[in-house]
Amino acid sequence: MKPNLLPRAALTGRSRLIHCITNPISINDCANLVLAMGAQPIMAEHPGEVEAITARASALAVNLGNITDARLTSIRLSARYAHAHQIPWVLDCVGVGCSPLRLDYARSLIQECRPQVVKGNLSEWKTLCGREAGVSGVDLSEADSREQVAHQLSWLGEFARRYDTVALVSGPEDLVTDGRQAVLVSNGHPMMARLTGTGCMLNVLTAVWLSAAPPLTAAFQAAAVLGVCGEQAAGISPGPGSLRTHLLDAVYNLTDADLAAQVRLTPCPGAGDTFTEQEAAL
Amino acid sequence: MKPNLLPRAALTGRSRLIHCITNPISINDCANLVLAMGAQPIMAEHPGEVEAITARASALAVNLGNITDARLTSIRLSARYAHAHQIPWVLDCVGVGCSPLRLDYARSLIQECRPQVVKGNLSEWKTLCGREAGVSGVDLSEADSREQVAHQLSWLGEFARRYDTVALVSGPEDLVTDGRQAVLVSNGHPMMARLTGTGCMLNVLTAVWLSAAPPLTAAFQAAAVLGVCGEQAAGISPGPGSLRTHLLDAVYNLTDADLAAQVRLTPCPGAGDTFTEQEAAL
Amino acid sequence: MKPNLLPRAALTGRSRLIHCITNPISINDCANLVLAMGAQPIMAEHPGEVEAITARASALAVNLGNITDARLTSIRLSARYAHAHQIPWVLDCVGVGCSPLRLDYARSLIQECRPQVVKGNLSEWKTLCGREAGVSGVDLSEADSREQVAHQLSWLGEFARRYDTVALVSGPEDLVTDGRQAVLVSNGHPMMARLTGTGCMLNVLTAVWLSAAPPLTAAFQAAAVLGVCGEQAAGISPGPGSLRTHLLDAVYNLTDADLAAQVRLTPCPGAGDTFTEQEAAL
Repeated sequence: MKPNLLPRAALTGRSRLIHCITNPISINDCANLVLAMGAQPIMAEHPGEVEAITARASALAVNLGNITDARLTSIRLSARYAHAHQIPWVLDCVGVGCSPLRLDYARSLIQECRPQVVKGNLSEWKTLCGREAGVSGVDLSEADSREQVAHQLSWLGEFARRYDTVALVSGPEDLVTDGRQAVLVSNGHPMMARLTGTGCMLNVLTAVWLSAAPPLTAAFQAAAVLGVCGEQAAGISPGPGSLRTHLLDAVYNLTDADLAAQVRLTPCPGAGDTFTEQEAAL
Repeated sequence: MKPNLLPRAALTGRSRLIHCITNPISINDCANLVLAMGAQPIMAEHPGEVEAITARASALAVNLGNITDARLTSIRLSARYAHAHQIPWVLDCVGVGCSPLRLDYARSLIQECRPQVVKGNLSEWKTLCGREAGVSGVDLSEADSREQVAHQLSWLGEFARRYDTVALVSGPEDLVTDGRQAVLVSNGHPMMARLTGTGCMLNVLTAVWLSAAPPLTAAFQAAAVLGVCGEQAAGISPGPGSLRTHLLDAVYNLTDADLAAQVRLTPCPGAGDTFTEQEAAL
Repeated sequence: MKPNLLPRAALTGRSRLIHCITNPISINDCANLVLAMGAQPIMAEHPGEVEAITARASALAVNLGNITDARLTSIRLSARYAHAHQIPWVLDCVGVGCSPLRLDYARSLIQECRPQVVKGNLSEWKTLCGREAGVSGVDLSEADSREQVAHQLSWLGEFARRYDTVALVSGPEDLVTDGRQAVLVSNGHPMMARLTGTGCMLNVLTAVWLSAAPPLTAAFQAAAVLGVCGEQAAGISPGPGSLRTHLLDAVYNLTDADLAAQVRLTPCPGAGDTFTEQEAAL
């Protein structure tokens, strides 16, 4: 496997409405990021209108952060509609590690409505899969050895194959696997961890690319774009306030050439029994 | 008709509380824009308190974006109070084109509570008036000929006269008419379409000016201020993140002289039978 | 009393989860400010999960702005949990001056759940304590003489002693008292009054410091940090858009040395009968 990135032109040619049902903390940043990437966001969440809006959308992005009763209802309506009508959608399992309410909901939603991509940090993934979450807030860190990553790939890949989905594990490095192939995206900048909503932004960016690419590609493309733009933005930012501003500017201005030059994608082994390029990856 | 702009001093002399019931996507930008213009925002939306707050306000701005049940209830309470007590208010019909829920609500609200200004993009206006919305998301573009604008003015003007209101059509150019007179505001910058919430900002800015001017003047004054400041901000912004920051700075610093020098206002014909300056406008 | 500021290192050593139940207007800024200070924000507000989240938190920040039914319910649940389990918490009484709903709620919450710090501007404090609020929106201004401050200290101090809390009065100068000692923080910049959410930011910053310091110290530390950083940010900002960006950057980069050099803390007299440094303060 050689992970191939897509050109921005893959998003042109028609209007792409991205229906985002997400939390108020980063809702402004998420809408602006979709616009900066070249698609059209709509953030509707009233149960009385979300199905009609998902019906018009090219992709759906769902986020459990700061959850409310209205969103619990509307997310299920939209996810059901998307599942029934082959509209690709992505679920961000934010907070399942500290709220049984969200954990139960996420599990039932995945089982019933089969998202094309499921996203979470490593701690959220461990909770979701019933594994012990180690220290609270543990992410996939640069210190993790490849062996540890490979060990995680076995159960992440099992999850992905069982639900025919793509697992997107966000962290200092982002891991993407469909249970057969896996890619590590080693971009980003530590200052991004001091800016709220970068995970939510990755979620809606994945939905933008789901409108134009298969799930595995959409997920690592989104992680690559956000990681590369985060590096560009952090390089000229004295702090997270500036980072927020420059990150939007960077996505708006990102060229295919810059993305190709700065991205660090690594195919990695251990995703599943059918993974075929283990040697190449090591 | 010669459209006259107002000086910033028209807003001074007393505290102007602007009650905004609006969506969470751009609520922060809207509050900051009201402050930057020199008025005081309050964004309360609990049905148990909105009437008391509208009662203290100099104007009310209502927005249907990302609508919730609580806001459906509180908007009606506040709009009724405003109508009964001659507090000027403006309704932003955002999303009526893709949600029958919002369309029905907007229509009944206009009929019952008679806003001084109704705002929407051309697609939303076509839906609101029962005309076929062409391509989804169509706005009044620079390519539209004056003849097309004049054609739209006939039914927009009819709506304005029927409900004794001002129609504010946002787009690359903003059109304002009360059914007798009409003004085209040809400011703004294409990058503004890549920043979420600029329409919502125009709505609350209209409310700020409604506290100090008649509806037609308030509407084109708000469009002029936002368009001119958008041009200033875009001129120094590499992307929409910077645009968002610079737009607030520009409104905060706008001088009457800069506004007068940069604004492009055109009276236009065809608003209604009583329109009297058709020759001057062409 | 000699008010001593804490070093940033007082916040290190363990993860500090700050549970914020706050309004959507400034929720993004609040989360980013907690991150910039070095703690971890979580903004959950669903009644079905807030107790579990408060249970994990180092401190709780509650804010009545833009209140909703869900937040009225969840705030009480979290405040009860915090009170029962000695988790320090701070209540921001925003808007009690214009909403009887919020005033009644704030009063009953203070009586039942005893916040470590209660925050409001002078007008909100007057309403809360049943004193006539003078002109609407009156804040503690630089023009207020020390005698006036001393006069306000008597009833503010009485409130603080009665409820065993710290009163934090925000304004051009911030006043902090526990009814025995009182400190005036004379930092900040007039442009901050043109940026929405600076009061909400002070509230969550107080919660961050409540995780590491006694209430009186936490309150004036937070006011000092925000005031000093506001001055730094305003000094390089042409308007409130830039101020918002630079304020986050400034908090992220603030050094103990800069804080000590720029802070203007004054112990002040009249807080209560046990106040012992009256001469030193004058």
